[in-house]
Amino acid sequence: MVHASNERRPTLEAVAARAGVSRATVSRVVNGGAGVRGEVRERVRRAVTDLGYVPNSAARSLVTRRTGAVAVVIAEPETRVFADPFFGRQLRGISRELSAADTQLLLLLQETRADHERIGRYLSAGHADGVLMFSLHRDDPLPAMAEASGLPTVYGGRPGWAGAEDALYVDTDNRDGARQAVRHLRARGRRRIAVITGPLDQTSAQDRLDGYRDALAPAAADPRLIADGGFTAQGGERAMAELLAAAPDLDGVFVCSDLMASGALRTLRAHGRRVPEDVGVVGYDDLDPAAWTDPPLTTVRQDVEEMGRLMARLLLRRLATGPGAARDELAPVVTAAKLVVRESG
Amino acid sequence: MVHASNERRPTLEAVAARAGVSRATVSRVVNGGAGVRGEVRERVRRAVTDLGYVPNSAARSLVTRRTGAVAVVIAEPETRVFADPFFGRQLRGISRELSAADTQLLLLLQETRADHERIGRYLSAGHADGVLMFSLHRDDPLPAMAEASGLPTVYGGRPGWAGAEDALYVDTDNRDGARQAVRHLRARGRRRIAVITGPLDQTSAQDRLDGYRDALAPAAADPRLIADGGFTAQGGERAMAELLAAAPDLDGVFVCSDLMASGALRTLRAHGRRVPEDVGVVGYDDLDPAAWTDPPLTTVRQDVEEMGRLMARLLLRRLATGPGAARDELAPVVTAAKLVVRESG
Repeated sequence: MVHASNERRPTLEAVAARAGVSRATVSRVVNGGAGVRGEVRERVRRAVTDLGYVPNSAARSLVTRRTGAVAVVIAEPETRVFADPFFGRQLRGISRELSAADTQLLLLLQETRADHERIGRYLSAGHADGVLMFSLHRDDPLPAMAEASGLPTVYGGRPGWAGAEDALYVDTDNRDGARQAVRHLRARGRRRIAVITGPLDQTSAQDRLDGYRDALAPAAADPRLIADGGFTAQGGERAMAELLAAAPDLDGVFVCSDLMASGALRTLRAHGRRVPEDVGVVGYDDLDPAAWTDPPLTTVRQDVEEMGRLMARLLLRRLATGPGAARDELAPVVTAAKLVVRESG
Repeated sequence: MVHASNERRPTLEAVAARAGVSRATVSRVVNGGAGVRGEVRERVRRAVTDLGYVPNSAARSLVTRRTGAVAVVIAEPETRVFADPFFGRQLRGISRELSAADTQLLLLLQETRADHERIGRYLSAGHADGVLMFSLHRDDPLPAMAEASGLPTVYGGRPGWAGAEDALYVDTDNRDGARQAVRHLRARGRRRIAVITGPLDQTSAQDRLDGYRDALAPAAADPRLIADGGFTAQGGERAMAELLAAAPDLDGVFVCSDLMASGALRTLRAHGRRVPEDVGVVGYDDLDPAAWTDPPLTTVRQDVEEMGRLMARLLLRRLATGPGAARDELAPVVTAAKLVVRESG
């Protein structure tokens, strides 16, 4: 793809010619005017106004190395970003926080992993001051690209890859949230409790599965009671059908996202299982779909919008202080999860 | 907000020092190597590799004026962008087309109109090669900012503001689509047909209202049969209630988006009106909600994903050819709308 130049934009050269000074002088004036006589400065400023010259921040960022923008990278295809309310809600928190700091949010969308290389190039090219990255999978190349770009980065969700010990991130206590869900089902008398997990190469999914196991101990989890629903509605539908086939006597299910739970409820209805009479269901997230399901979903609340806010705030602080800040000012944040009891379980 | 420098990124100066050459020589090599002796060129390239130096595209774009990225601006708050499937679908088309051309999609999100100025600054700062803009309202300042930035721009939806005669845009034939919808309701024997419009400062909303009026002629539209639903589900719910209060004898309603139609159906149900027995309903868009409503929605199909594709394709062509291309290569595109008959009307 050849991109033509932006032919209508007045150049630095044109300003220099009109003011009768050198390019370097124009550049100095545009970047603050230090070391330029008042009369010359005035002449350059008049030429800038006359021509409607907009200082190219590519040029300015060579001096200040600032763009006023933060890149957001979600390691999922565009389709999922717009189908899963989790992402919209997290972006809302990020957007509000960045907007309050007069910083532009750049959402870098992608289709497939083949697009990752281009994203890495864009990050390395100095068009943003920092990066927020979320929904990463264990072998994603994106964190290495963020590292190579030299841009300060904050992750959404605990990083699971090797060498991420110093990474800044925001997460909820997924393991504890899962424990609360499963203990609740047990307290309501459920004895055969299944789990529908997210993709286990994501730490949030793995942590919730670990919490499920904790809450069942000392009894061990029966492998027939575990199915992967991939964090999508269709995946939840399919995983619930697998569980009913493998363990028809199940009487409870902990579903690791509300979106998967909406799918699981459809499957239970199609199989004639009443919720909560025959099977108790508890979800995870407490996003809009949870209140809309029939019956309304008992779920584990994580404040997704607030997590977005916290990510943005942590990155802005990192950008303001540099890497040398006291460790207690720049540390990962883990928020609490909280069971919300409605009617499904 | 003070953003610190990206302290870990090796600089041009470091490369120059290591290679024992001037900054200007490094810059020339990084940008193609013209006029630099082979042996020197080799030395610089080795230093680049050794240090892991990534040429800052802020620097490179001073020479080439290319970023390999296209900015997408939706003139709606982040909340609406993620709540309305229209935007996700249009972005999918854009994303696929840009991805195929190895061009990065930058979605510039905003919260309020106060953010427009910052978006204007970012566009003027040379971080993208062109702009795709949609969901504009009549007095939006964004088109003037796109113009001032000098970046080639393609609009989604026919521009309604003065001075937009030469603008490039992609649209569907909204007026004809509306005519098809209302003629269908009349052919099914409806005699009191209401309309729920979008915000009338958008040309798509105005064109659909005009098509509704065309199809009722020579009889004039009764103002009690017209209500504004603002292109949201809640707006559709509210507008339907207003219409039922003002014209209880209505027997048909053309709703200018599927999202508003989902709200209108809820109101009709709450008022005990059966669809289609008592009231025939026709929507607009044919996005996912249309097939999920109860009963499934008769609607006017516009291929929203294809519109996104066409927008991206038109902009890429404009970037490749420059503004001087033959007019038949660079012209607005208007696609056809087509009625899809399901059960609601």
